[in-house]
Amino acid sequence: MKKANKKLNAAIIIIGNEILSGRTQDVNVANISNWLNTLGVKLDEVRIIPDIESAIIKTVNEVRKKFKYIFTTGGIGPTHDDITAKSISKAFGVKYCYQPQAYKILENYYQKGKFNIGRKKMAKMPNNASLIYNPSSAAPGFFIKNVYCLPGVPSILKSMLGGLNNKIIGGNKILSKTLSLKTVESEISIPLENVQNKFKNLEIGSYPFFKQGKIGVSLVLRSKNIKLIDKCTKEIIKFVKKKKIKIINNK
Amino acid sequence: MKKANKKLNAAIIIIGNEILSGRTQDVNVANISNWLNTLGVKLDEVRIIPDIESAIIKTVNEVRKKFKYIFTTGGIGPTHDDITAKSISKAFGVKYCYQPQAYKILENYYQKGKFNIGRKKMAKMPNNASLIYNPSSAAPGFFIKNVYCLPGVPSILKSMLGGLNNKIIGGNKILSKTLSLKTVESEISIPLENVQNKFKNLEIGSYPFFKQGKIGVSLVLRSKNIKLIDKCTKEIIKFVKKKKIKIINNK
Repeated sequence: MKKANKKLNAAIIIIGNEILSGRTQDVNVANISNWLNTLGVKLDEVRIIPDIESAIIKTVNEVRKKFKYIFTTGGIGPTHDDITAKSISKAFGVKYCYQPQAYKILENYYQKGKFNIGRKKMAKMPNNASLIYNPSSAAPGFFIKNVYCLPGVPSILKSMLGGLNNKIIGGNKILSKTLSLKTVESEISIPLENVQNKFKNLEIGSYPFFKQGKIGVSLVLRSKNIKLIDKCTKEIIKFVKKKKIKIINNK
Repeated sequence: MKKANKKLNAAIIIIGNEILSGRTQDVNVANISNWLNTLGVKLDEVRIIPDIESAIIKTVNEVRKKFKYIFTTGGIGPTHDDITAKSISKAFGVKYCYQPQAYKILENYYQKGKFNIGRKKMAKMPNNASLIYNPSSAAPGFFIKNVYCLPGVPSILKSMLGGLNNKIIGGNKILSKTLSLKTVESEISIPLENVQNKFKNLEIGSYPFFKQGKIGVSLVLRSKNIKLIDKCTKEIIKFVKKKKIKIINNK
């Protein structure tokens, strides 16, 4: 059982010069991760790489062996810098060719005479790839084995995740609880470490915050087991009360 | 000359369960990248990894050989999940011990009797590491060889970058220009590809946008050579005018 759970992980490969250059703020990692949490799949690594074929091939081939599910974002549009589908074909050593279903969807979507070469390119995928439907703008994503290729535009990507729910075999939902305290990390580090040592199957993260002049620490407890989270919360509250630290939030 | 320029690259390793879990939106990538642009250093890869010692050691040792500068963010605070300094020590095979200067800074910063074990931990670093000063909250970052370790809190991280300017040997500033058009990507993909093929030493990115009901495409030209950017812009404007596409922005 433990072994099976261990494998319910994922990695994201963000393909995009615009993220690396600092021009565009990525938000797809958080969106995909929050969706994976609901499916009980843990995001274990993210790589952000440039729009370079060799980089995509190398990265995809490396991570697809290490993680159960791989999601790529970006590079599936009609322009010269959209090279994800071609690169993934090469990574898998399969032909890069028209996917008949995708061709049909796009042909129907565009007016007669408007289905130009750029648009046709969006129907080219690794041979035998399956489609990920796009309810926002027609051009589908695709998946081949454990690699799921999604667009880079966040709103479109988000609209496509729901269609993948029945493709991803997940586990129990990953639950999290946040306990915010009016303190600084160095005041609680020792008792907190003691609690973490007691709860090996639960992850406690400690995050200082400075918001609107207020200083505090958010403790985030993550586990698939709600009872464990409750038990651990009680242990933390015990030392927090002893130290007379104010609890700002407990949700 | 070309060879030297090729090496002016960097990678970022974001160490943080909070980013992978979707709880926290990373903004450090964009901040570091924009700073690197001004120094003429190109960000070539980002990895986001969990707070797990083996993952940190493996990733650091892999990327520090591939890129000129490595920046890590996160995991240098006082709590149990702050394991960056210890892990980096192991990656380099050096002792994890008090850095005398860091110890002194922190000792002076805290009131007498308040320099507790958690706070002392923030002075522990790889043996012979050099400090990155922290004008916001005393606790310094550090660097060892080409690996620069910064905190995860964005405002503190940002305040520390300036102090690194004279440590990073960069090149000519990476310049970028954005040309926003009222069109869709598939209308311009072919002539745009022709222009890109003419300008091999300049990177053209094409990014569709949907803002407040407005649809358009931003073309981003990046190069260290302003003349090349200007020349390429003219070539693009030529086909844009021919196609009667409206230019929304040219800056």
